Amino acid sequence: MFYLIGLGLGDAKDITVKGLEIVKQCDKVLLEGYTSILTVGKEILENFYGRPLTIADREICESSIDGILQEAKDKDIALLVVGDPLGATTHTDMLLRAKELGVKTQIVHNASIMNAVSCCGLQLYNFGETVSIPYWTETWKPDSFFKKIIDNYSRNLHTLCLLDIKVKEPTEESLTKKVRQYMEPKFMSVKEAASQLIEIIKNNECDAGLTASSLAVGLSRVGAPDQNIAAKTLEEMKDFDLGPPLHSLVIPAPSLHPIEVDFLEQFR
Amino acid sequence: MFYLIGLGLGDAKDITVKGLEIVKQCDKVLLEGYTSILTVGKEILENFYGRPLTIADREICESSIDGILQEAKDKDIALLVVGDPLGATTHTDMLLRAKELGVKTQIVHNASIMNAVSCCGLQLYNFGETVSIPYWTETWKPDSFFKKIIDNYSRNLHTLCLLDIKVKEPTEESLTKKVRQYMEPKFMSVKEAASQLIEIIKNNECDAGLTASSLAVGLSRVGAPDQNIAAKTLEEMKDFDLGPPLHSLVIPAPSLHPIEVDFLEQFR
Repeated sequence: MFYLIGLGLGDAKDITVKGLEIVKQCDKVLLEGYTSILTVGKEILENFYGRPLTIADREICESSIDGILQEAKDKDIALLVVGDPLGATTHTDMLLRAKELGVKTQIVHNASIMNAVSCCGLQLYNFGETVSIPYWTETWKPDSFFKKIIDNYSRNLHTLCLLDIKVKEPTEESLTKKVRQYMEPKFMSVKEAASQLIEIIKNNECDAGLTASSLAVGLSRVGAPDQNIAAKTLEEMKDFDLGPPLHSLVIPAPSLHPIEVDFLEQFR
Repeated sequence: MFYLIGLGLGDAKDITVKGLEIVKQCDKVLLEGYTSILTVGKEILENFYGRPLTIADREICESSIDGILQEAKDKDIALLVVGDPLGATTHTDMLLRAKELGVKTQIVHNASIMNAVSCCGLQLYNFGETVSIPYWTETWKPDSFFKKIIDNYSRNLHTLCLLDIKVKEPTEESLTKKVRQYMEPKFMSVKEAASQLIEIIKNNECDAGLTASSLAVGLSRVGAPDQNIAAKTLEEMKDFDLGPPLHSLVIPAPSLHPIEVDFLEQFR
């Protein structure tokens, strides 16, 4: 059996009882390490589970998955994923591949930022399409997510913006060499996201009314004891340090429900 | 401290390890019993937690919450909620009330249908606004949710439809009597939802292209071992029995990603 197990968002104890039981009885346990991170590292998880973990990076999850699935034909193998295991397309793809290979699968769901974002008081059913904000480079500044934010905003819906994560990215130099070198991991902050958004707003005519003075909600380490939430204008958010990663940013709808207004007040 | 603890979607073991630890040490544990249900009842949860549970119905959660929060000033009280604890406005409202009364709170997140719906293979970031489909009566047939489905559909987004739940609803007769009588609990099936949707489609001009022949995805008991998913036209869904509750319905975007198409194929 091949298990996809969600770890939730905070620390080791955010796994479900069902998930933990499976981890304890599996022959091999992999930890997916590139779509998200917990606030604790591999060693703390290993101590808590009482099991050794193998880090599964992008190469393993995408290129070497067939070997793992073949092994799961007669062994129990679990892949642990931060948040809910089906938040990223990669994992849905794995389930399809497993089906083709005749490998049984089981999913253990958990909290994801897609639902836990409600901790800021904005109601889940008032959210529109979720967007991802990628890191810009000198030569590559995509802004297609902005159109989606504006679409939501003009329908009076909130937008959850997932912020870019770069883990085990090969350096530009190493792409031409035989030996791979990797960049330091980096996690986009609400500060960086707000700054990119303001740049887009400056360069785009926008009738919907979203400006640098519009409200934004920054969230860090949702579900952890040091979770942090701030409600500020985009302009203020650009200079605001929300602490260690992971961060997410919400662009609230222009007109809020009274409960949403009251709830956000405490984060101003 | 007042704890809001998510129970996830399936059975007793879908609580997180953190949530279970808190339940075991709390002075009083309430089980919220009207916004959703698990596949197991109160007794099984009590046995698993080793703690007695008090059912908290709508009246308790909305009218008598102040008393509970006052008690939480010097005792540890947990309210257990199926799914994620902040899926419904009621619970956000409780947190606000707690703040006003000076009561400390902690949230333990868990999977919600809002993220676990991805088990059907439709990607979360392709979902637009979530809607709720209410039970119609002879004289009350609201259809405002339909406009939202069409808005999503015409932007090529999926719509998650949460289906109505009636638990401890007073009978019409009892509203005029002194003694309250309650209706049998009922949970809307994908069959009933599809039938209401088709009636709306028949009565409305719709340029977006959504018809009774459009694809719908029905989900029942997501996260449980007897989880069931069916991909059928709305017309077929109207006559299809997806088994015991809870059910949810998805109206997929008109144009799907190849992985979404492949994944849905297994539920046709």
